Amino acid sequence: MQAPRDEATWPLRGVLAPNLTPFGDDGHIVEALYIEHAERLIEEGCVGLVPFGTTGEAASVGLDERIRLLERLVESGIPASRLLPGTGLTSLPDTVRLTRHATALGCAGVLVLPPFYYKAVSDDALFAYFARLIDEVDDSALRVVLYHIPQVAGVGLSIPLVRRLHEAFPETVAGIKDSSGDWANTSALLAIEGLAVYPGTELLLPRALAAGSPGCITATANVNAPALNQLVRLVRENLEASRDAFESVRRVRLAVQEHPSIPALKALLARRTGEARWRNVRPPLETLVESQEAALAEYVLQT
Amino acid sequence: MQAPRDEATWPLRGVLAPNLTPFGDDGHIVEALYIEHAERLIEEGCVGLVPFGTTGEAASVGLDERIRLLERLVESGIPASRLLPGTGLTSLPDTVRLTRHATALGCAGVLVLPPFYYKAVSDDALFAYFARLIDEVDDSALRVVLYHIPQVAGVGLSIPLVRRLHEAFPETVAGIKDSSGDWANTSALLAIEGLAVYPGTELLLPRALAAGSPGCITATANVNAPALNQLVRLVRENLEASRDAFESVRRVRLAVQEHPSIPALKALLARRTGEARWRNVRPPLETLVESQEAALAEYVLQT
Repeated sequence: MQAPRDEATWPLRGVLAPNLTPFGDDGHIVEALYIEHAERLIEEGCVGLVPFGTTGEAASVGLDERIRLLERLVESGIPASRLLPGTGLTSLPDTVRLTRHATALGCAGVLVLPPFYYKAVSDDALFAYFARLIDEVDDSALRVVLYHIPQVAGVGLSIPLVRRLHEAFPETVAGIKDSSGDWANTSALLAIEGLAVYPGTELLLPRALAAGSPGCITATANVNAPALNQLVRLVRENLEASRDAFESVRRVRLAVQEHPSIPALKALLARRTGEARWRNVRPPLETLVESQEAALAEYVLQT
Repeated sequence: MQAPRDEATWPLRGVLAPNLTPFGDDGHIVEALYIEHAERLIEEGCVGLVPFGTTGEAASVGLDERIRLLERLVESGIPASRLLPGTGLTSLPDTVRLTRHATALGCAGVLVLPPFYYKAVSDDALFAYFARLIDEVDDSALRVVLYHIPQVAGVGLSIPLVRRLHEAFPETVAGIKDSSGDWANTSALLAIEGLAVYPGTELLLPRALAAGSPGCITATANVNAPALNQLVRLVRENLEASRDAFESVRRVRLAVQEHPSIPALKALLARRTGEARWRNVRPPLETLVESQEAALAEYVLQT
């Protein structure tokens, strides 16, 4: 039996932020804000960033834009070893292209969705997709974190498929982000020896850490990173003493979840930074209406 | 009130084939087979081709591959005015890129999916997406055929949204492919003045033609184009006399639909042409198992 995925083989232990992507009023990416926000999240204690997750509006960001932003992040001085960019598209050639680029840049790994256009596909076919991706990228430095978010992607990754992929590629298929929000699923994944399992929500963080998870990848880190990082420290020291800290981050999470979460997080960031452009989203997302924003901000920011 | 979308403003009247994409045993595109099949479909009477539809495994074909194949089609001598390529991805920048390229090549129009990653988005947001696409492509030659296939994309286009888009951009938003298979939806679309409405199945073809549709875009054209084109001629001449022809194409359609349709059509094409590589699909699709193929072929090809 192989060793568990420990700190030596997988160092991203703590809170990872799926960092938001800022757009100007003309819809173009504002690189300076993107870098500034990434730097702030690292300063606030996040162990890593996940550019181009669902929260980062990855699906609305073009391939060339993703490549450029990732390079700008590394040029700005954020170590590539702390980056886990999303590279999963619907086609192998484009997913291979982004994955090769991120791996060559020295990223810790890549977060990869299953191909999400065709629905009701088999585990065998999804296995073939990931196997071919790994084969075509052909780089021993590649580390794949699978991305399970069936409620958005419309295609999920079953426990037997994840186990099979990890067993076939134990070094390469290093982990999974489980955004199902379902503890039964997360705990079944945590039973797979040597797999780094990140829940996609801090609501499961204390239980996951206690069961061997390295941390979590959570959207609210964009506006609540210090409290989330403090929570991880407290849970590691003493699960019981972390109760108040958990209750605090839980309140923020539930308040954000009452709204479409990406525009909600962007509105909160706009208020916190005084930079109105953070409110902008690309279609098909929409900004929060002002009354929603005001109520949320009052609750979360106590402004 | 504007004029109906007539032959002068929208000449693609008849059967359009969403042409299949051939892959070699190594997964790469086989360009020679792609062109050969496209030429055969035109020879068999198809009024146009729809490269990179769902049937063409568009979601599994990379951006650069799409651009190259479209150029090869035009270079091969197929008039761009008979091409309606799919260009809809999840992001505006990449959709703009493919749409600009197709329009500059002189294509009749482009078939555009709604952005299909984020679910439960509003009509206002989808309107904004298409409006921004049209604005950014900024070419008076652009003609958009909307692509409604909610059972696959997970995001559909409501009747009020289609009407609003067509009224806001009456020249540019020229039509819709309705792959819902739901006659109530198709007939509601046919009530929109000046919109070219293509059902995505020949099962609705006689009714649609009688109600003013210019034709249909159907996957089975890949293996049954002569009979489908004959059906269109008969329906135009005499709906009553077309009954036997309809019954014949209907039998083929229903037989194909009993299987995953893309691998089924590829298997039939492999048998018909003697080119085994036509059976290959890219993951996450899978080839038919041999017993399925044999039964289907016996029924459809009478081999």
